[in-house]
Amino acid sequence: MSIFEQRESEIRGYCRVYPVVFDTASNARQTDDQGNEYIDFFAGAGVLNFGHNNERMKKAVIDYINADGVTHSLDMHSTAKRRFMERFTKTILEPRGMPHKMQFMGPTGTNSVEAALKIARRATGRTDIVAFTHGFHGMTLGALACTANQAFRGAAGVPLNHVSHYPFGADKHTADNPLSNGKDVIDELRALYRDGSSGILPPAAFMVETIQAEGGVNVADKKWLQDLQALAKEVGSLFIIDDIQAGCGRTGSYFSFDTLDLDPDVVCLAKGLGGWGTPMAMNLVKPEVDKHWKPGEHTGTFRGQGLSFVAGAEALSYFEDDSFMQTVLAKGKVMHEAIAPLESTFDDVQIRGTGMIYGVDVGNGERAKAIVAACFADGLLVSACGSGGRVVKLIPPLTIPDADLQQGLETLVTHTKKVMEVAA
Amino acid sequence: MSIFEQRESEIRGYCRVYPVVFDTASNARQTDDQGNEYIDFFAGAGVLNFGHNNERMKKAVIDYINADGVTHSLDMHSTAKRRFMERFTKTILEPRGMPHKMQFMGPTGTNSVEAALKIARRATGRTDIVAFTHGFHGMTLGALACTANQAFRGAAGVPLNHVSHYPFGADKHTADNPLSNGKDVIDELRALYRDGSSGILPPAAFMVETIQAEGGVNVADKKWLQDLQALAKEVGSLFIIDDIQAGCGRTGSYFSFDTLDLDPDVVCLAKGLGGWGTPMAMNLVKPEVDKHWKPGEHTGTFRGQGLSFVAGAEALSYFEDDSFMQTVLAKGKVMHEAIAPLESTFDDVQIRGTGMIYGVDVGNGERAKAIVAACFADGLLVSACGSGGRVVKLIPPLTIPDADLQQGLETLVTHTKKVMEVAA
Amino acid sequence: MSIFEQRESEIRGYCRVYPVVFDTASNARQTDDQGNEYIDFFAGAGVLNFGHNNERMKKAVIDYINADGVTHSLDMHSTAKRRFMERFTKTILEPRGMPHKMQFMGPTGTNSVEAALKIARRATGRTDIVAFTHGFHGMTLGALACTANQAFRGAAGVPLNHVSHYPFGADKHTADNPLSNGKDVIDELRALYRDGSSGILPPAAFMVETIQAEGGVNVADKKWLQDLQALAKEVGSLFIIDDIQAGCGRTGSYFSFDTLDLDPDVVCLAKGLGGWGTPMAMNLVKPEVDKHWKPGEHTGTFRGQGLSFVAGAEALSYFEDDSFMQTVLAKGKVMHEAIAPLESTFDDVQIRGTGMIYGVDVGNGERAKAIVAACFADGLLVSACGSGGRVVKLIPPLTIPDADLQQGLETLVTHTKKVMEVAA
Amino acid sequence: MSIFEQRESEIRGYCRVYPVVFDTASNARQTDDQGNEYIDFFAGAGVLNFGHNNERMKKAVIDYINADGVTHSLDMHSTAKRRFMERFTKTILEPRGMPHKMQFMGPTGTNSVEAALKIARRATGRTDIVAFTHGFHGMTLGALACTANQAFRGAAGVPLNHVSHYPFGADKHTADNPLSNGKDVIDELRALYRDGSSGILPPAAFMVETIQAEGGVNVADKKWLQDLQALAKEVGSLFIIDDIQAGCGRTGSYFSFDTLDLDPDVVCLAKGLGGWGTPMAMNLVKPEVDKHWKPGEHTGTFRGQGLSFVAGAEALSYFEDDSFMQTVLAKGKVMHEAIAPLESTFDDVQIRGTGMIYGVDVGNGERAKAIVAACFADGLLVSACGSGGRVVKLIPPLTIPDADLQQGLETLVTHTKKVMEVAA
Repeated sequence: MSIFEQRESEIRGYCRVYPVVFDTASNARQTDDQGNEYIDFFAGAGVLNFGHNNERMKKAVIDYINADGVTHSLDMHSTAKRRFMERFTKTILEPRGMPHKMQFMGPTGTNSVEAALKIARRATGRTDIVAFTHGFHGMTLGALACTANQAFRGAAGVPLNHVSHYPFGADKHTADNPLSNGKDVIDELRALYRDGSSGILPPAAFMVETIQAEGGVNVADKKWLQDLQALAKEVGSLFIIDDIQAGCGRTGSYFSFDTLDLDPDVVCLAKGLGGWGTPMAMNLVKPEVDKHWKPGEHTGTFRGQGLSFVAGAEALSYFEDDSFMQTVLAKGKVMHEAIAPLESTFDDVQIRGTGMIYGVDVGNGERAKAIVAACFADGLLVSACGSGGRVVKLIPPLTIPDADLQQGLETLVTHTKKVMEVAA
Repeated sequence: MSIFEQRESEIRGYCRVYPVVFDTASNARQTDDQGNEYIDFFAGAGVLNFGHNNERMKKAVIDYINADGVTHSLDMHSTAKRRFMERFTKTILEPRGMPHKMQFMGPTGTNSVEAALKIARRATGRTDIVAFTHGFHGMTLGALACTANQAFRGAAGVPLNHVSHYPFGADKHTADNPLSNGKDVIDELRALYRDGSSGILPPAAFMVETIQAEGGVNVADKKWLQDLQALAKEVGSLFIIDDIQAGCGRTGSYFSFDTLDLDPDVVCLAKGLGGWGTPMAMNLVKPEVDKHWKPGEHTGTFRGQGLSFVAGAEALSYFEDDSFMQTVLAKGKVMHEAIAPLESTFDDVQIRGTGMIYGVDVGNGERAKAIVAACFADGLLVSACGSGGRVVKLIPPLTIPDADLQQGLETLVTHTKKVMEVAA
Repeated sequence: MSIFEQRESEIRGYCRVYPVVFDTASNARQTDDQGNEYIDFFAGAGVLNFGHNNERMKKAVIDYINADGVTHSLDMHSTAKRRFMERFTKTILEPRGMPHKMQFMGPTGTNSVEAALKIARRATGRTDIVAFTHGFHGMTLGALACTANQAFRGAAGVPLNHVSHYPFGADKHTADNPLSNGKDVIDELRALYRDGSSGILPPAAFMVETIQAEGGVNVADKKWLQDLQALAKEVGSLFIIDDIQAGCGRTGSYFSFDTLDLDPDVVCLAKGLGGWGTPMAMNLVKPEVDKHWKPGEHTGTFRGQGLSFVAGAEALSYFEDDSFMQTVLAKGKVMHEAIAPLESTFDDVQIRGTGMIYGVDVGNGERAKAIVAACFADGLLVSACGSGGRVVKLIPPLTIPDADLQQGLETLVTHTKKVMEVAA
Repeated sequence: MSIFEQRESEIRGYCRVYPVVFDTASNARQTDDQGNEYIDFFAGAGVLNFGHNNERMKKAVIDYINADGVTHSLDMHSTAKRRFMERFTKTILEPRGMPHKMQFMGPTGTNSVEAALKIARRATGRTDIVAFTHGFHGMTLGALACTANQAFRGAAGVPLNHVSHYPFGADKHTADNPLSNGKDVIDELRALYRDGSSGILPPAAFMVETIQAEGGVNVADKKWLQDLQALAKEVGSLFIIDDIQAGCGRTGSYFSFDTLDLDPDVVCLAKGLGGWGTPMAMNLVKPEVDKHWKPGEHTGTFRGQGLSFVAGAEALSYFEDDSFMQTVLAKGKVMHEAIAPLESTFDDVQIRGTGMIYGVDVGNGERAKAIVAACFADGLLVSACGSGGRVVKLIPPLTIPDADLQQGLETLVTHTKKVMEVAA
């Protein structure tokens, strides 16, 4: 019996899907301890946008360690943090005219969501949050109340109060969500908030993902997001974008909302922010909201991660001009062209996504599970998401070589066809 | 205006206490970007038990990176994780006869507490948790409900329900906590739980720190902890030890409770676990409790941190025999001998602590602030904790050279005397 | 200064609208201490369906008192209670084939709602309740969470959790509620409940009024109610009708839902149940739901009201044949014919209602207030309800003499016209 | 099968203890439909302080009904209400120099508690309430959160938040409550409130009964109550006395706290207030607290009960001089003398009480149940209260004839002895 079977908690999950022991990894390939190689279309759940052991980051990090750079600094100032903040300001915020402050917290996405909820409640003096069906925002109790999936909510053990869920406004009908009727919901909410006898008050904030990644790769309708933001401003609520999985280049621009003409009060970032796998989380908060914090009110031991600042600064170098994002868009096009025929071939398949995040909704979790297993056996790592795990999610590193991308897509398409043909 | 003033959130805290920019660090010394050196009695809030840039860890980590080791793996298996788990089992669990399973989660202390609360509620079917005055357990909503300090609680913005606080049972009267009356509380709780008309039911769990570090270095009474554990077993509640700050060698043995004859159902670990500053968190959970988890119920993107596994495995090598812990106890004795006279000299000073964690309670926050500032100006990093920040906390790296320890203690004692003499 | 100004709480309300001291009352007329008479279109907020000091009830009650009948018995058996229960069974339940048990509780509507919520949560093991916009269900904390009006909710002082509000399904567009889109809401809820990633679970119960009286005389759509009941059965929720104000004959049959082909699991009754003004409340609960109660779990000192049983038994005699209900329908027709022209004359007026409950929605609260004041000055008691108090509600005793009804309607129409003409 | 068995809810309770059908009642005697008479030591759970069908009240009520007095008026002014308020002011408030306002609400004790909680939360801007072990304050959700008995709390079906329970301070050790350690609790609370790191904030109010009637006839220590009130004032909380069962003459003065040198901000009254069994509830609220209400914020249909005002005004006539209270004290002495020997005879018996409320704690519920049943069979109505129903409660009408009192006491003592002798 392996040490994992002996001693690891029953809660372990991905290792049941990929029952091997990974040893090394480089860019879009992982190798297990038996020497088997896998093309990685999972990218550490969206963290490894720049590939495993990105060479630029490796070098920068090793140099930093060798120079005895500060690895851990809480919210003290460090030269590594200064470099990261300067580069983020120059590369990301200033070109967009974003006045936001940067808040660092415990380096996980759920911590960033918790901080966003606190400052929204503080700044507005309200308690309720509106989140959306199929949204995923984390596992700690405040964030979990925003997460929609009952498989996660059911573990809370206490009522998840002060958050209401309404139907997400997708850009098209989504197969597993008959309520992707964005516009109606916003009108309904506006009417409810205006009506002193509705039983419902305007929330502290609306918390939304532009692309629900864990939720099944549901892309929000642009107009719906704009209307939602307009409603938020109208009723005095904050508009918060959780860009934890869709941000940091995944959609072909730094923020997933760059092309959506939005102006969020708070943006939650994590996953791809540190760039190579060491954790980091950061909220962008408008100054007029941020000023409501008192020093030290929301702490977190690991909120000053030297290696993540160093690697994250390297990650930002990919955004100094458009060239990298152009390759992302080009690779995304390759992905779409490869999988689009599945949708036209099989009634039960729906393709959703944009940039380099795509979901293949195959109608139920059993089929998706079979596809994931077959791909794994054939050297491709993909994972399932969405309701009942019915969507095969494709999020390769943005830096994946064309040949790996091509090979991975072929493997995916082959096994998806096989499973769907059996199902038919 | 620096980038920090321009762009960092108003919530920033420690950088206001130490208004410099740190650049490099080695063992117990940090250097700022102007070349000023500081002896570190703060150790990254208890993370850096083995010093900044511990040479053994540096080498192991650089080798791992150079070999393209997996840096980020969620809860997939990896060879680095295997090594860590095997070593933890062999070095820590087996010698103690602990049957506990290891659960990895988002790599911060607050995430480990959230996971502990969930499994306690699931395993017992109850909702309430008992925590203690002056306890600190984290900032996310579930953990924050357990944290006692109103400065943190006030930022929640929603009621912090399902947790009740009772007086902590300290090993002696503590100056800032007139209610350190352990035994009485346990008898009171037992009577309340037995009484069907008390309005109070037994909780899912009791959550306690053996040494409240953030809470002001309050050391729990051994008998009180044993009685508390006995009460927990009697009423069907879990007994959870939050060993996040006091564990991993800080008290002169791996767990802070090694000498206390306790048998906790769940142990929360983080901070010193990864050993050199990259984040890591882990709960030890008895199998009969752990079995209540369903796979994947409590996730977290960054729960598989390769560098932390590698460095953490090195950290464990310090515990393969008693020699390192003997040096810790010896250094702790040096610390105590240096500061004990402050207590006998000044009526308003109380010394609390054990191992290599000591607090100098100077009676109010203003004095402590003045001491911290004077020490900083004189090249020593210490921080304040406890009610109103009235306790100067000393938690140097366990690996601090004797000379640095001596010099730091002299600085501390000098400035404490000065401030207390003015106050007198 | 009167004793009321000296000593009555600032919370007093109706006495500010009718600033006189009432002394006596008979059927549909009240007389103040100066001898001024008022026709009563308010009927004690729907309690006095059978008129003030109904002669049959007076006689029965006086006889009962003179015979030293038990006035107060908690939930002991009494002969008066036996008579009431037998008559209720024979006159109301058996003809409808209703198997429901009768539960008596503290004799106010809010207590009946609290009991209904408890048994719904117990019977289903769920916590959440769905109520509807503009609903009114009482003032105690459990019932208040179901009440939609923020003027009442705002007084709670604590979060009103575990109840969600959705748009009420009116039989037609209602002027003050743009969301009277019943059907859509039911489809939306069904989809949300079916979707494991919606963040929403099926509730313990749906709590609905067939006619929202306090909410502005909004009549539910028959099909919507049927669909709602079907949804409830489909997802394992109870279907609860709060018939406190609309029941007991007000709509032209005993229950407001008699003609709606519904089969509620629980029916809440109060107001008109006791018939002449002494309090009484009762829930009708299907046996398979009721069996979940343990004896004495939901008590209430005044749950055995002898005088209310006696008067209530007399009230039931009005339902032994159809004749009384025929007169109610006839009088309702008179009411409608009198006020319908207001709607066709004034764009801002909408008439809503059925049986002998009608609302004249005059577009805003200022107008309604002016109409109420003018009517009062002219000897007619009416009150305002609905959002911002914009609806003048007409609920005369069902026993009102034709002449009084006619005179009251003329007064109302005259003053409504005057106010609306000024507004135009 | 009787109508009760066929159609009354399973929740019915007292009728299981007294399985007869009561028909008539006069002063301290009830008669069932078979002509059996019972001496009443239960007095409708403390409502019937002036006896069943009190002759003065009967006459006043019948005259009022015959004169077509207003029976039901919500919070409109009525001549009956005026008389009641004037008399209450003159007889009760003015002699005590109490400036309190009178607030009428839904006519049950639980409604009065709900109103008290709302105004306490509003006036202080706080949410939490402190209540005490063994306290009973009602069944609706807000009041139920204050009630301590788990048999009632368990029916809520939702968490009962925002209320904390602490040990009640009894005037002596009480057999079923080892925590009757008043003074300690107040010091503990004071220390917790002063400590910013206790996790506990001062409450909106302390809610206490001077005598816990349902809780087992636990008499509060006078000094404890004074200290509690002092603590409330010190920390800005309201001090609320729930005098619903112990007030209105039961203890030998109008308020149970008349001899305790207290100055409550709010007093909750119900039960004995209306005097003869028709419901009534009223809060006395200091003007500086009451002013926080907005008109109509806490409504209730049945808050203007004409018959209760009329009977209640008669009840007040008993308090115009001391003579009636002298007879109560004398009868109370008779009660105590009769039952005190039980305590000295049987180790397991404890006598608790004062005035005309006494409890005979017989050590467990089985014995109490046997005593209640034997007494009933022998023509005496008593009921059990306290933890597990272990206390036989004696609350005869204050107007009970000496002979009935004597006879009842003999019955009680006889059967208590028998049961206790068997138990020994």
